[in-house]
Amino acid sequence: MITARPTSRLREAVRPTTLIPVPLLTRRLGAEVLLASETLQYTGSFKFRAAYNVVSEVPQDLFITASSGNFGQALAYACSLVGKSCIIVMPGTSAQVKIDAVREYGGKVELLDLSLKSREQRVRELGAEHPEAYLASPYDDPLVIAGNSTLGEEILRARSTLDYVVAPVGGGGLASGIVSAICQSGRVVRVIGAEPLIANDAARSLRAGHIVRNEAEPQTIADGTRTLSLGKHNWEILKTGLQTIVEVPEDKIVEAVRLLFTLANLKAEPTGALSLAAVLTRPELFRDREVCCVISGANVDPAVYRSILEG
Amino acid sequence: MITARPTSRLREAVRPTTLIPVPLLTRRLGAEVLLASETLQYTGSFKFRAAYNVVSEVPQDLFITASSGNFGQALAYACSLVGKSCIIVMPGTSAQVKIDAVREYGGKVELLDLSLKSREQRVRELGAEHPEAYLASPYDDPLVIAGNSTLGEEILRARSTLDYVVAPVGGGGLASGIVSAICQSGRVVRVIGAEPLIANDAARSLRAGHIVRNEAEPQTIADGTRTLSLGKHNWEILKTGLQTIVEVPEDKIVEAVRLLFTLANLKAEPTGALSLAAVLTRPELFRDREVCCVISGANVDPAVYRSILEG
Repeated sequence: MITARPTSRLREAVRPTTLIPVPLLTRRLGAEVLLASETLQYTGSFKFRAAYNVVSEVPQDLFITASSGNFGQALAYACSLVGKSCIIVMPGTSAQVKIDAVREYGGKVELLDLSLKSREQRVRELGAEHPEAYLASPYDDPLVIAGNSTLGEEILRARSTLDYVVAPVGGGGLASGIVSAICQSGRVVRVIGAEPLIANDAARSLRAGHIVRNEAEPQTIADGTRTLSLGKHNWEILKTGLQTIVEVPEDKIVEAVRLLFTLANLKAEPTGALSLAAVLTRPELFRDREVCCVISGANVDPAVYRSILEG
Repeated sequence: MITARPTSRLREAVRPTTLIPVPLLTRRLGAEVLLASETLQYTGSFKFRAAYNVVSEVPQDLFITASSGNFGQALAYACSLVGKSCIIVMPGTSAQVKIDAVREYGGKVELLDLSLKSREQRVRELGAEHPEAYLASPYDDPLVIAGNSTLGEEILRARSTLDYVVAPVGGGGLASGIVSAICQSGRVVRVIGAEPLIANDAARSLRAGHIVRNEAEPQTIADGTRTLSLGKHNWEILKTGLQTIVEVPEDKIVEAVRLLFTLANLKAEPTGALSLAAVLTRPELFRDREVCCVISGANVDPAVYRSILEG
């Protein structure tokens, strides 16, 4: 279990999560649904919590990371706030809106052809060129987990009667942050992971009892979970900290994005809708329970979003 | 000036407005922009504040109103919370999503062909059939203004250095509520109305010094402002309480909806984006000032929203 704890500086820098009770969703799902939306967090996703914690806690002035976008934006903005700089390695197939945003926040973008080289390889190369830099993992770092645990703290503070928190699982940084906050609180609230069925390495890892890796980045619409595997620090927390992982078919992800739009007035990216999609996929798990669904982010290409609304 | 004040019961029933600083908008507009979003309010718009105040303050058990949708949804939901009932007269051309929502909240919908009869006529007829009912105006009622003033109170409490609050103007219920809260606070914060150029009866009224009516409901994309004129109670407050009204071309409304989507991750209906559209229309008014834009609601047909994103 990690020991890093969020600092008060971090707690002041983040926007408090937006807690949204949605009567129409509650009625439709037969579960008391509370959304904890990070879509209005700085840079549009929970990743700002982790990024700010990393850049403000380590002494280095240059950061290098691989990110499909949200951690990149978050790191770029966090660096701009504390006067540091960063290089973000992104797949050439990343949503254009995410690439543009990293640049608008002042980050330097390195686009990568994933068929030639993995993100990790390119980060290592850049690290060799810039030995003074901090190689920042978007998820596999105690400082990242501590940053994300502030979200868990806020959810616990807001509701004393929660049964479940549901959070998307990619590299595992968000879920491990939430588990970590719950452990530190001593409260009994179960955490359920939501993972795309076609990117279910974390669910397979839980079954196998060790980290299982995807051979290539799975092409789920939930692009924030196109990771090869859980991080080691995250695994140490999640292997016992998760109640279970719901494996979500792609069509449920799309349905969840639409429901968030129509019933909750929330713009969510597909990864952000995974937790609600998990409730749609396994409604019997949640019936008559009080469930907090973490809506992790909202950075989605307008064209992708339009096609999702179109059905 | 009205004397009605919001009750503590009302303050507990509403969701606090969502205050969103948006660094990317601030940079783009050259003004310090804070959004006060009512898109996550119960029923998806600020109208719940007014509706709840009306149904909980008057003794009647049946309410009849004319509404293009948001006040109807709000009244239906407010009635369901306090065990009362309502009939909502809506134009047959209302967004389907608004009609469905009124019904889902338990309201009875009366669709109306506006070429045959005005909403006011039909409400009067229904009032004659149900003499026990309260004929609720969506804007022209001191209880509505007092309900909406809670939003002004929240904005004032959140920021001590605001220069401007910008709010959409249809019947004038929202703007007069905000002006009323500012007057009662004794603070000097100027309120600017945002009205579609093709539905500019309020701007013309300010110039004329008396209420000017549209001859027919103007077909602006901002369907929440398709009112014939300001209400009398609202006019009494707005004739001296508004700094000015910015008359917004339709294309700026569309641009504002898109900017809220891309830069603020906010789903807004066209009427909800009017205040930001006013800043886009008259940027010189706001340069280097601290401006709170009220995003009044988010209930928009998915098809309309898709076409707006498409450009």
